[in-house]
Amino acid sequence: MKKKGELVSYRPDIKVIDCTVRDGGLVNNFYFTDKFVKDLYFANLKAGIDYMEFGYKASKEQFDVSKYGKWKFCNDDDIRAIVGDNDTDLKISVMADVGRTDFRNDIDDKANSPIDMIRVATYINTIPSALEIVEYCNKKGYETTVNIMAVSKSNDMDLDDALELIGRSCVDEIYIVDSYGSLYPEQMRRLAEKYLDCAEKYGKKIGVHAHNNQQLAFANTIETLTMGVSYLDSTVCSLGRGAGNCPTELLLGFLKNPKYDITPILGFIENHIVKLKEEGLIWGYDIPYLLTGRLNQHPRDAIQFTAEHRTDYQEFYHYLYDRDI
Amino acid sequence: MKKKGELVSYRPDIKVIDCTVRDGGLVNNFYFTDKFVKDLYFANLKAGIDYMEFGYKASKEQFDVSKYGKWKFCNDDDIRAIVGDNDTDLKISVMADVGRTDFRNDIDDKANSPIDMIRVATYINTIPSALEIVEYCNKKGYETTVNIMAVSKSNDMDLDDALELIGRSCVDEIYIVDSYGSLYPEQMRRLAEKYLDCAEKYGKKIGVHAHNNQQLAFANTIETLTMGVSYLDSTVCSLGRGAGNCPTELLLGFLKNPKYDITPILGFIENHIVKLKEEGLIWGYDIPYLLTGRLNQHPRDAIQFTAEHRTDYQEFYHYLYDRDI
Repeated sequence: MKKKGELVSYRPDIKVIDCTVRDGGLVNNFYFTDKFVKDLYFANLKAGIDYMEFGYKASKEQFDVSKYGKWKFCNDDDIRAIVGDNDTDLKISVMADVGRTDFRNDIDDKANSPIDMIRVATYINTIPSALEIVEYCNKKGYETTVNIMAVSKSNDMDLDDALELIGRSCVDEIYIVDSYGSLYPEQMRRLAEKYLDCAEKYGKKIGVHAHNNQQLAFANTIETLTMGVSYLDSTVCSLGRGAGNCPTELLLGFLKNPKYDITPILGFIENHIVKLKEEGLIWGYDIPYLLTGRLNQHPRDAIQFTAEHRTDYQEFYHYLYDRDI
Repeated sequence: MKKKGELVSYRPDIKVIDCTVRDGGLVNNFYFTDKFVKDLYFANLKAGIDYMEFGYKASKEQFDVSKYGKWKFCNDDDIRAIVGDNDTDLKISVMADVGRTDFRNDIDDKANSPIDMIRVATYINTIPSALEIVEYCNKKGYETTVNIMAVSKSNDMDLDDALELIGRSCVDEIYIVDSYGSLYPEQMRRLAEKYLDCAEKYGKKIGVHAHNNQQLAFANTIETLTMGVSYLDSTVCSLGRGAGNCPTELLLGFLKNPKYDITPILGFIENHIVKLKEEGLIWGYDIPYLLTGRLNQHPRDAIQFTAEHRTDYQEFYHYLYDRDI
């Protein structure tokens, strides 16, 4: 597949989606201060970011609202308290997980909501449930995406069938999601080719959500972008579950569209991220994440290992390795 | 250019060069304990690493030996105290910087030395001086390389001329060196193509030495490897100047040759690297390095900024940016 665009120019179809609060919320149970979220909103605005994802639309029946910060539920009023009428070019997105959302109760008509886009996260075996949510939200007036998680565990035949099914739906974007941070650029380019074939056939756009287990989140993002992927997820300083995501500051350093400006993000880092680190919040690339990524495993054991401040990496590697045999 | 090899197989021409003591020595003035260096030697041996670089052959007239650890000078006897006769498959390398080495005094016949390979680091405007050292070392019986530093600052015409000149010499390997960590995978692949054309014409091999300013050291290493580059520099946990290098543990996770084993490196990390960090040694990816990398500048200001524990990233960025105009 021919590459799209050159290093010195830019493609106006590129969109940057800031997932700092949503993926970062998985690190601190969504307990961000209003000042953090508001300052991030204004930093994103000034930086030219295209979408800001505020969190999840999680079911209040399944999850105790007293045990999580508000961005796990993303009530329209809570978003409005940050963005007002959001009379800006920055669009607002939230994520709904298949099986964990009461979308019929919790997602209002777009006309009544500050939200612009609903992103539906699904494993490959629950695509029909994902499409049910997509159809519902589409009718309510939202832009929608389907994010197929853990694609590194899927086989090619299932993925081809899944893309066909999603392609024929009313969804706007389809995401490549390297949930375990296990994929190399060569594999990501191959996946991008497959997804882009589907996108061309059905008039969709393709997005990418990378994890940094092998320090490849940024590389995988720009390599798939070069092939035509246009919705790029990132988080400030990688803030996100486990090894975190493609860092916004690296991505903005790469993009050439003059509307993007790295300096508001640098300001946000010095005012907020430095403090989060000082307070002891732990995320980002480290040896345990490399090991789960390399073995194509869920990062949960690495998160546990890191939280316990363990450094017996050899022992941990043998444990992960033996478990897979 | 067609890619060489597949993800599931391996190329026997691949060599891994551990530069932990040499590039890491730039962080701590080469003050490693003998136990550190000896344990690294044995870890490298067990991990199947092909070369271990012990440090520099720096001029004792130019540099005060009392102000640096011994690995800045790499006396044969100091190496021998670690490796004995080195009756193993692990080869020993040292680096000589153009203009900073008394090679005629300090480099003995290979027959009398534990060293196998001399790597000559040069800027593009001192290639003739580099080749003088190469010819000398080649006659003494050593394997040699020319490492063209800061290639991101060179223009194409100079680089073509330089490669011609080096190609016609007796050197064994030529290195792509991304000194400032400023190059993207697309640019690295383009450079690899150019270097590999020269390699094919003159029967040389090509190596890669990456820096991690933009979290691309590993990606750039495996992307150029995929095109045919075969000498791969890495350091344990990225230990190296500024943002550090391609991490050995990531590289060994990628390589499929059964001779490579990540576990001795994990053991070395838990026994030695964890302690270095606890003692306060600072290296590795951070915002200031991203900024110098992005601006294609030497990392010296970022090193200073980091050493001062500053976090006024916006200010720093403006300073770097303005200076370049």
